[in-house]
Amino acid sequence: MKNFTYKNPTKIIFGKGALKEIGKEIKPYAKKVLFTYGKSSIKQNGIYEKIIDSLDANDIEYIEYSGIQSNPLLSHARKGAEIAKKYNVDAILAVGGGSVIDESKAISIGAVSENDIWEFILREVKVEKALPIFTVLTIPATGSEMNCGLVLTNEETYDKFGWGDEHLYPVTSILDPELTLTVSKEQTAYTSTDIIAHSVEAYFTRENDFTPFLDGYVENLVKSVIASNEVLLKDSKNLDARSNLMWTATMAWNGLNHCGAGKFYLNNHQMEHPISAIYGIAHGAGLAILMPAWMRYFKIQKKERLSKFFKAIFNEEDVDNGIKMFEDFLEKIGAPTSFKKAGIDEPDIEELTKLAMKGGEHRGTNLSKKDVKSIYELAV
Amino acid sequence: MKNFTYKNPTKIIFGKGALKEIGKEIKPYAKKVLFTYGKSSIKQNGIYEKIIDSLDANDIEYIEYSGIQSNPLLSHARKGAEIAKKYNVDAILAVGGGSVIDESKAISIGAVSENDIWEFILREVKVEKALPIFTVLTIPATGSEMNCGLVLTNEETYDKFGWGDEHLYPVTSILDPELTLTVSKEQTAYTSTDIIAHSVEAYFTRENDFTPFLDGYVENLVKSVIASNEVLLKDSKNLDARSNLMWTATMAWNGLNHCGAGKFYLNNHQMEHPISAIYGIAHGAGLAILMPAWMRYFKIQKKERLSKFFKAIFNEEDVDNGIKMFEDFLEKIGAPTSFKKAGIDEPDIEELTKLAMKGGEHRGTNLSKKDVKSIYELAV
Repeated sequence: MKNFTYKNPTKIIFGKGALKEIGKEIKPYAKKVLFTYGKSSIKQNGIYEKIIDSLDANDIEYIEYSGIQSNPLLSHARKGAEIAKKYNVDAILAVGGGSVIDESKAISIGAVSENDIWEFILREVKVEKALPIFTVLTIPATGSEMNCGLVLTNEETYDKFGWGDEHLYPVTSILDPELTLTVSKEQTAYTSTDIIAHSVEAYFTRENDFTPFLDGYVENLVKSVIASNEVLLKDSKNLDARSNLMWTATMAWNGLNHCGAGKFYLNNHQMEHPISAIYGIAHGAGLAILMPAWMRYFKIQKKERLSKFFKAIFNEEDVDNGIKMFEDFLEKIGAPTSFKKAGIDEPDIEELTKLAMKGGEHRGTNLSKKDVKSIYELAV
Repeated sequence: MKNFTYKNPTKIIFGKGALKEIGKEIKPYAKKVLFTYGKSSIKQNGIYEKIIDSLDANDIEYIEYSGIQSNPLLSHARKGAEIAKKYNVDAILAVGGGSVIDESKAISIGAVSENDIWEFILREVKVEKALPIFTVLTIPATGSEMNCGLVLTNEETYDKFGWGDEHLYPVTSILDPELTLTVSKEQTAYTSTDIIAHSVEAYFTRENDFTPFLDGYVENLVKSVIASNEVLLKDSKNLDARSNLMWTATMAWNGLNHCGAGKFYLNNHQMEHPISAIYGIAHGAGLAILMPAWMRYFKIQKKERLSKFFKAIFNEEDVDNGIKMFEDFLEKIGAPTSFKKAGIDEPDIEELTKLAMKGGEHRGTNLSKKDVKSIYELAV
């Protein structure tokens, strides 16, 4: 087990009806918030109204800033920071999934600095402060509601970079599983794949010493995603399964799944970011394309680890069978397990490889150019 | 899954050599600390010296307050609070196991109040403030290093009450597994039993709805304790196994093992506290006496849950066999599984029952007087 430091101050309010607490949570921190969200769907499903009621009841003014898209864009975050400055807001209320929360974190830095947001992400400038962030999660997947990370795409360069800073832990995140009952089958598949990818990145890329707690923690995350999906395939509005999936998503990327892991790499995320940046597909779809290919590429080198994993997840020790079972699970829930199945018949492997290597330079990687190219080829 | 709120701001610095960070962590909070510990053992094993070096290097004065015993006493905490007041310390540095940390938490409230510590624990007075607490953990077991609870014994009344308040989360806890290499075989057995008891209290007493993540989290804690002990029985100074056990202890009682559990009860703790209070045996020994008896008493009523548990832990679905295997494990590591095996030939079941019911009144219980008495009888 390797040395680590862990501190995660985010307050989670979890459960049916938790949404109504949001105003009370913000009140000690802000009189005026930037209320960020994506599309107008929150106005159709009643979430918007409930939030406004809670803000009004606590005398909190709000400036709306919507239009945040999946794979959020630097240009939109920059504009959000300008608006936050112009209206002099005290905090940010992000309502949505990981993309909305991630862009809101970027805005929270830009809103209190003269530097450009991208300078922070390139680590040219250190974060000294940020506006307090509050979140209402509507699509559980990225864990952004209980971590200090974000992923942002610079559309001028196609760079989609992951980055984090300890100022960016949300103060409070509302996890109300009722808000997730309307998540589509497709989105459930993609987000479930993302949760699994978060769970296993460290598990498969770190040095494997004696860490039964940590190993079991990760295996349990994956089993939990599968268990929720088995229920949701038959009953997509099952609140228990939605609740379990929501909490599993948070616990998969709040830092606990790599406490003691030591050095590890985000192989699948490094290689996925160029796919969604170029082809505009969902991040989880890109991960589903890559994960079985990654496993096949490393099936000899990481045989023991993969065998342990599949034994825990499917009670199957044979790695080839295990990969097939994992692929079957992804297909059953509706995630594409190859470029072709995602409708990308001829992926530009040269360009993908170039961008993945650039992403690797930014965050660090153990993958060579040959590894990256070969895995993309296996995923065609 | 039931509603919950979770917030745990304690910073954990984990790993070999982490001890030297303590002064740097305290510095922003305090110029003078009350340095609390138990016996002089920390002076023999070099911990004391390293702490003093780290405090000196950061210009932090310290007032020593030692003599904290297992099952810490109200009278000693009261005296500690007087000393903290007299010397006007800014913070408390607790070095030891759960008892030292628990008493230090009590001192941290008493040091800044005109009320008596016991008034807070009886919930007659609300905590408004407390001194910041820093801990160096030397005996992993209670999770007190990352929670806001404490257990204190009022020796005038034999009341051993558990209680908590959100002001009592340590600011920083140093978890240096090297400091635990010298934990005795006996203490390892008792603390391991305590960790298992923390893990399962909610698992066995709550309403069991669909919660695969939570169930698996708890089962993993127990498997992890067993895995570390299998190694430690052969090699008591194995740093990997000590590390895994240390982190498992923290993760077993920092709140995560009952996020979403809803209402639950501390049956084993409720019934153990009178045993250690009257007979002065280790808390973990008392738990080992009780847990198999508790399982036997509830083996019909909670058959399904016990079967799920033993399937996960021992791959054994039969409850009788499972209880026997659990008992065998406890005996193998050196924990007594009955009053007799702990050298208590004729436990005063009337008195134990009376005290356990009083403890149940304080914290809430689902056990009737008949349940309590019967379980004690089964444990003879």
